[in-house]
Amino acid sequence: MKIKTIGVLTSGGDAPGMNAAIRAVTRAGISNGFKIKGIFRGYDGLINNEIKDFTTENVSGIINRGGTILRTARSSEFETPEGRKKAYENMRSNNIDALVVIGGNGSLTGAKIFAEEYDVCCIGLPGTIDNDLYGTDSTIGYDTTLNTIVECVDRIRDTAVSHERIFFVEVMGRDAGFLAQNSAIASGAEAAIIPEDSTDVDQLARFMERGIRKSKRSCIVIVSESPKCGALYYADRVHKEFPDYNVRVSILGHLQRGGSPSAHDRILASRTGVGAIEAIMQGQRNLMVGVRNNEIVYVPFLDAIRSDKPFDKKLITVLDELSI
Amino acid sequence: MKIKTIGVLTSGGDAPGMNAAIRAVTRAGISNGFKIKGIFRGYDGLINNEIKDFTTENVSGIINRGGTILRTARSSEFETPEGRKKAYENMRSNNIDALVVIGGNGSLTGAKIFAEEYDVCCIGLPGTIDNDLYGTDSTIGYDTTLNTIVECVDRIRDTAVSHERIFFVEVMGRDAGFLAQNSAIASGAEAAIIPEDSTDVDQLARFMERGIRKSKRSCIVIVSESPKCGALYYADRVHKEFPDYNVRVSILGHLQRGGSPSAHDRILASRTGVGAIEAIMQGQRNLMVGVRNNEIVYVPFLDAIRSDKPFDKKLITVLDELSI
Amino acid sequence: MKIKTIGVLTSGGDAPGMNAAIRAVTRAGISNGFKIKGIFRGYDGLINNEIKDFTTENVSGIINRGGTILRTARSSEFETPEGRKKAYENMRSNNIDALVVIGGNGSLTGAKIFAEEYDVCCIGLPGTIDNDLYGTDSTIGYDTTLNTIVECVDRIRDTAVSHERIFFVEVMGRDAGFLAQNSAIASGAEAAIIPEDSTDVDQLARFMERGIRKSKRSCIVIVSESPKCGALYYADRVHKEFPDYNVRVSILGHLQRGGSPSAHDRILASRTGVGAIEAIMQGQRNLMVGVRNNEIVYVPFLDAIRSDKPFDKKLITVLDELSI
Amino acid sequence: MKIKTIGVLTSGGDAPGMNAAIRAVTRAGISNGFKIKGIFRGYDGLINNEIKDFTTENVSGIINRGGTILRTARSSEFETPEGRKKAYENMRSNNIDALVVIGGNGSLTGAKIFAEEYDVCCIGLPGTIDNDLYGTDSTIGYDTTLNTIVECVDRIRDTAVSHERIFFVEVMGRDAGFLAQNSAIASGAEAAIIPEDSTDVDQLARFMERGIRKSKRSCIVIVSESPKCGALYYADRVHKEFPDYNVRVSILGHLQRGGSPSAHDRILASRTGVGAIEAIMQGQRNLMVGVRNNEIVYVPFLDAIRSDKPFDKKLITVLDELSI
Repeated sequence: MKIKTIGVLTSGGDAPGMNAAIRAVTRAGISNGFKIKGIFRGYDGLINNEIKDFTTENVSGIINRGGTILRTARSSEFETPEGRKKAYENMRSNNIDALVVIGGNGSLTGAKIFAEEYDVCCIGLPGTIDNDLYGTDSTIGYDTTLNTIVECVDRIRDTAVSHERIFFVEVMGRDAGFLAQNSAIASGAEAAIIPEDSTDVDQLARFMERGIRKSKRSCIVIVSESPKCGALYYADRVHKEFPDYNVRVSILGHLQRGGSPSAHDRILASRTGVGAIEAIMQGQRNLMVGVRNNEIVYVPFLDAIRSDKPFDKKLITVLDELSI
Repeated sequence: MKIKTIGVLTSGGDAPGMNAAIRAVTRAGISNGFKIKGIFRGYDGLINNEIKDFTTENVSGIINRGGTILRTARSSEFETPEGRKKAYENMRSNNIDALVVIGGNGSLTGAKIFAEEYDVCCIGLPGTIDNDLYGTDSTIGYDTTLNTIVECVDRIRDTAVSHERIFFVEVMGRDAGFLAQNSAIASGAEAAIIPEDSTDVDQLARFMERGIRKSKRSCIVIVSESPKCGALYYADRVHKEFPDYNVRVSILGHLQRGGSPSAHDRILASRTGVGAIEAIMQGQRNLMVGVRNNEIVYVPFLDAIRSDKPFDKKLITVLDELSI
Repeated sequence: MKIKTIGVLTSGGDAPGMNAAIRAVTRAGISNGFKIKGIFRGYDGLINNEIKDFTTENVSGIINRGGTILRTARSSEFETPEGRKKAYENMRSNNIDALVVIGGNGSLTGAKIFAEEYDVCCIGLPGTIDNDLYGTDSTIGYDTTLNTIVECVDRIRDTAVSHERIFFVEVMGRDAGFLAQNSAIASGAEAAIIPEDSTDVDQLARFMERGIRKSKRSCIVIVSESPKCGALYYADRVHKEFPDYNVRVSILGHLQRGGSPSAHDRILASRTGVGAIEAIMQGQRNLMVGVRNNEIVYVPFLDAIRSDKPFDKKLITVLDELSI
Repeated sequence: MKIKTIGVLTSGGDAPGMNAAIRAVTRAGISNGFKIKGIFRGYDGLINNEIKDFTTENVSGIINRGGTILRTARSSEFETPEGRKKAYENMRSNNIDALVVIGGNGSLTGAKIFAEEYDVCCIGLPGTIDNDLYGTDSTIGYDTTLNTIVECVDRIRDTAVSHERIFFVEVMGRDAGFLAQNSAIASGAEAAIIPEDSTDVDQLARFMERGIRKSKRSCIVIVSESPKCGALYYADRVHKEFPDYNVRVSILGHLQRGGSPSAHDRILASRTGVGAIEAIMQGQRNLMVGVRNNEIVYVPFLDAIRSDKPFDKKLITVLDELSI
């Protein structure tokens, strides 16, 4: 089957650069003779037929904007066979021959299942702030969020130093410590507490032995969000053990998702968006487009969503040596 | 008594622009023949004799930095007669003839009591993000914090729109709604909940009647922090009444205090710092230096710390009319 | 005549906050029962009938964006009686009863002439980065541009210090030194060269006597743009007199106009936009809406466009004392 | 010879992240038992004996600051055998056993010659905004400068769109188009004119055929700085051929070098700084530390300074397809 029309959607948590990716898919598609349709609200929009023809105008002036003009959602209906059936029927009735899905782990898992079930062409772009997709050096949104966190911690440092306080700053990344570890290095924080390390070591104890007592001056610890052991938990522990310490907590929360994307994320989104159209033209399907070592790579869905994206343990040494 | 040496300190919550103020007092003082001494950690440093000679070099390269190189603290000891006695003795033993205090309401109240008790020359600069000092159009730090909040809400708006959620965003200003009301106007928020209005009106109910139901699309409500009725309280109420609404909370917290000061705050700090030295040269004392209508003004401490800085109720109309 | 429909346009050089002003006029107008029409490309759009009905949707999501969605232009045709006649006829044929003009000195002068010639209701909003309109504490765009300049000079300072160079940085403000003088104070520059001072004093000579020779370290001089005596002229003079100095020039240029408006400018635009609608409802006409001393004021066009907006000479002292 | 003391210097054009690199070398060095000496003003400081003992305190609070606390310079004396002899003698008299040089192509070439001539251990860190060093995915400063340019072009876009103008924006990168090509992609510019392409193609002509005539709307062309063919040259050509086009030029200049480094550059500087100390501990020498594919790599000087860092021609296609 010759592909003539491509649908594009964003799914899961929004990430800065998703708009740049939508723009790239749309314009590279049109540049190469395809028709483009925008699908609103993720897989739900495919199920509910919220689909609109896209021209180059629809994506004009959005490369520098956070969020996603296509809106996004986590679809529970698409997890059911009935939901995917409706989605497929709407694809057919809208003459959509291929789907470009911009999203994270869960969204690409959905694309994989859908592609296998109905034998359709699905291409994924790595759109998530968590950087937890395998096979690409970074994901669209990760660099911007890292910069946002570092900018916030720079601000918190001003007040931490002025008042000589200990701050526990909680950042996103429930299952992946990339944001926490790297923002700790970049902001000159004294420690990071991350999921990769937490099963077998008491990271707070190790840090406190290493020197929280050395001085009463300011100190910043970055903590990956966690259902049980977030920043509040650790602040409480320190407070109990050292009642005279001046401990504060800051939970950065949703502001980490927004904002104008960084140059890096705009370029990554532009290159992978063009790469998605090239993949379709080459007859490829059911894979994620990434960038490794400055080159476009195609990663089969199965590999991309592997849960074991390697975390470089040397980054822990880097932080330890630099926070003396 | 001819004043030869001036001590400068920062006190209370840190505010962006305090460093610009320290620089201005130091350099304008030296430009006019005074000796300057930096006092560390607020009034506590005066009590504990943490005092250091300052040259123009000490304040070089700090105009653009958040926080305060003099550190700051809230001193409970200075609230006691014994504490103030020690402070006075250290002033004398360090040959400090006049004191410039950069701080908010509580810090200037302390300066007023001290000045009266020991008949010393105290000049205040309005250094607080809360904008709650009377007699000056704005306070050092307020404009920067307003910009920081608006930048954060711009980011939250990206994710609120993408996911079509209702956000309650909590900002600083326990006793003054300047930050909440003005950041709501500036960020295009749908409503603000502020202390000035909260005693007699149920602001959330009024807002919800006005239209939260009109659409299911995104919506942002800015809430002044409050011991009882913060963003969590209001989010909970909405969630109970409309269980299908997608409600989220973001508490901006300490990052509101930090960051490089805005142009406005650096200029305000520079002008009032020069104004403080001029006041001393004119033999004035025990007043706060402010800017009204683009002119330097001297405001007696008693007036500056009045608790009734007027809140312009028309700003509520502005927000109401623009959030349709 | 009862006013039912209001046209809004932006004219002259674009300024950050113009979109916030368009939004405020549109929404406050609709909130109060008016019909709003957007006029594109300034007075040219009125002459060429580029006019479109505006709803609240048209101004959604623009409060934080630089530039103007209505586009802008300097119209030479509107300076002719024929041009204004066409403009008036289009106003009538579009049933536009009143005009809100967002622009600077030239644009409000045009509004004044037009209002007098055809006896129509014109309200001006002070939209210009130059801050050269009389009767308002600041103009929409001025605060943002000041922050942009200061941010740029902070960056230039990094490289000036690292290489120990003398920089001449040229900023906008051909006829008004507000931007140059205040950005010099805010960025901790060593000197400013401004039009207000330039007729009778050789500002560079005065500065160089004051101390450019004192040290070989870095130094930044802010220069108001000028057809004859811009940054290049002064750099050349210094270079000739001190050939071993390491002199560089940076002309900030058009990037000073763009960017997301500051909180201050968004609030000013929102308040004056609401104020414009209130003025129309009160039957007022042919005046500019400004803010003085935190209060809305109405300034007759004749006063607003006076060329003598006072420049506070004390700011020169502030800079001199702080750049030691 | 066992290495006990390490000297660190910055050389050539300053780049954001150099301070983070100085901090990393200093702290990782001290963490591993070395003594660290800071050398001021690049190789000139080694020749003139401007050397100071560094503790962890010396590099406290600098990770987020642009420029270099060690100052920098291009040394013509170090290019002479006499200069290098003095440098070597000062190394010996200060007991400096190894040198870490943070700089670009010219600085690492100097290090290579010096290392060979005197058989000393020299380690290079890639500190340059130009990204023109071979063997590392990016150089310290490149990402920050890219973001700065993109932010500036975003601003210029606001005014370009509002006035419907054609802008030629000149950016740094005399010999390498990385900054121009990638900032064009990231800012959504319509074209880039780069040195890699300029010998055999008239890039402006190609661009103008492609569509500058299609519409009279706004348009942005990014131009790599060039002695002959900068932005002014191209603007002039367009102006001559299409006299009714509204053409403007913006030369970004030195502000591209400054500013707080991005998260990416701080992490790159931190990791390579730690890597430099590790290299010394492993007995390695005369190589540059880089990061490829997220891993630390050691690149012999000869390879790093090769002039043929590959430019990915596919980026030209990306820009072409997305600027329709």
